[in-house]
Parts: sequence; structure tokens; C-alpha cells
Amino acid sequence: MELDFSKLDGLLPAVVQDARSDEVLMVGFMNAEAYAATLERGEVTFFSRSRGKLWRKGEQSGHKLLVREVRVDCDADTLLVRVEAPGPGACHEGYRSCFYRRLERDGSAAVAAERVFDPATVYGKDAKR
Amino acid sequence: MELDFSKLDGLLPAVVQDARSDEVLMVGFMNAEAYAATLERGEVTFFSRSRGKLWRKGEQSGHKLLVREVRVDCDADTLLVRVEAPGPGACHEGYRSCFYRRLERDGSAAVAAERVFDPATVYGKDAKR
Repeated sequence: MELDFSKLDGLLPAVVQDARSDEVLMVGFMNAEAYAATLERGEVTFFSRSRGKLWRKGEQSGHKLLVREVRVDCDADTLLVRVEAPGPGACHEGYRSCFYRRLERDGSAAVAAERVFDPATVYGKDAKR
Repeated sequence: MELDFSKLDGLLPAVVQDARSDEVLMVGFMNAEAYAATLERGEVTFFSRSRGKLWRKGEQSGHKLLVREVRVDCDADTLLVRVEAPGPGACHEGYRSCFYRRLERDGSAAVAAERVFDPATVYGKDAKR
């Protein structure tokens, strides 16, 4: 089937979900090349909007995301990638999931998960996933 | 905390996850107004890119998504909205989740979920969520 890369200037949002726990780990964007690389290698590869290039998750940290299944939504413009995540955490802040903060009604954010690794050790000071 | 609406011209991707089953139901976009409406009413409200206006999920179908928790990611540019979904399905194609198709290695898509309602009955021919 044809994916619709037209809505976000060549990008699709890709939701990454742990295939065992069903936890949503992170959301990134893929262009056609990142999507092809993800399938080819079986490891989640995004297009980094800030750096303007492909970014294979775990290339620095070693915390790769291994593709188990790819789902596509009804409009063919969003992916759900179910993965095995053998590393301690997907988030460069040291958490299992990037969604470690809960937004409260007053607009504040509360940490709602435990830190599972020290980001400075894994990423150094220039934290980049 | 401040959400970063700048990366997608005023929009944030919002992943909607069933708070009971942890199934990812859909992904939509929120602008600041849609986000405020979501919190205000406790029902998921998106900004429809195709129609250029707010779209309260379930306004036609009755299949509302009731907010149980909102999470924000490390970059404050993506939301994870955990919901109660009392309607039969979030997808306007008649499935529980919009991610009802699995992408196969050969590029084809296979339906991997059961249809739970008849979209023509709920939405009429002009299917619009």
C-alpha cells in the first residue's frame, strides 16, 4: 500500500510501542528513506527534524528499538511500530518512555516514572539519543 | 510547563491510548486551542488539518474519548492522552483502533483486527469521524 507522506512535507509520525508491555515509548518522524531503513535493518530509524538527517535510534546509546510489527492507520499517514526494546530506556533523559511526565490540571508537569539509567553516563553532556 | 507548538506550525501530535487495554487507538493533532478544549471538557479534541477547525472526537459518531491522563514527552512537543473509550471503536472505518492494518514486508497491508461496528450506519456515506 501507498503511505501518504504528503501531509507533513514528506514525514509521517511514528509511534513506538513496546510489544511486550504495550507502553508507548516515544514518537518520532520518518520520511520515506527512514521508513525504508527501518524495514531494511529491522531497527527503528527516524528522520531528525532538528539535524535534518536520518537517525537510527540507539546509534549513540546502544538502546536500539527492534521492529516486531508495523501497523498503519486508516488514513495511511501515521505508523505504529511495535518493538522489542532491550536497552534500559528509550528516553535520552534516562527513562523507559519519553512520556515520563504527567500534565496536571494546573498546567504543571509531574514526573510519573522512575529513572532507569543515568543519561550523563550514556550520552555524555551533549545528550543526543 | 510550556508545550512546544513551534515545530509543526502550531500543532502537536497527540497519541490516544486506551487507559485500560493500553491499545493505541489513534493519533491526531492539537493546536493550543484544541488542547485547551480537551482539558476543559475532558474529551479529546483535535485540530483537523483537512478541515482547518477544531474537531471534538465523537461529535458525529458519539464515540467520545474521555481523558483520564495526559502525558508529555521529554521535548514537550508530543502528547500521550490516556482515555476511556466507551464507544465501540475510535476508527471511522469501524475498528476499535485506527491501526487495524499490519504492514507486511512486501509492502502490502493486512487487516489484523475485527470490525466492531458498521461505519455506514454510524457515519453515513460521508464518513467523518
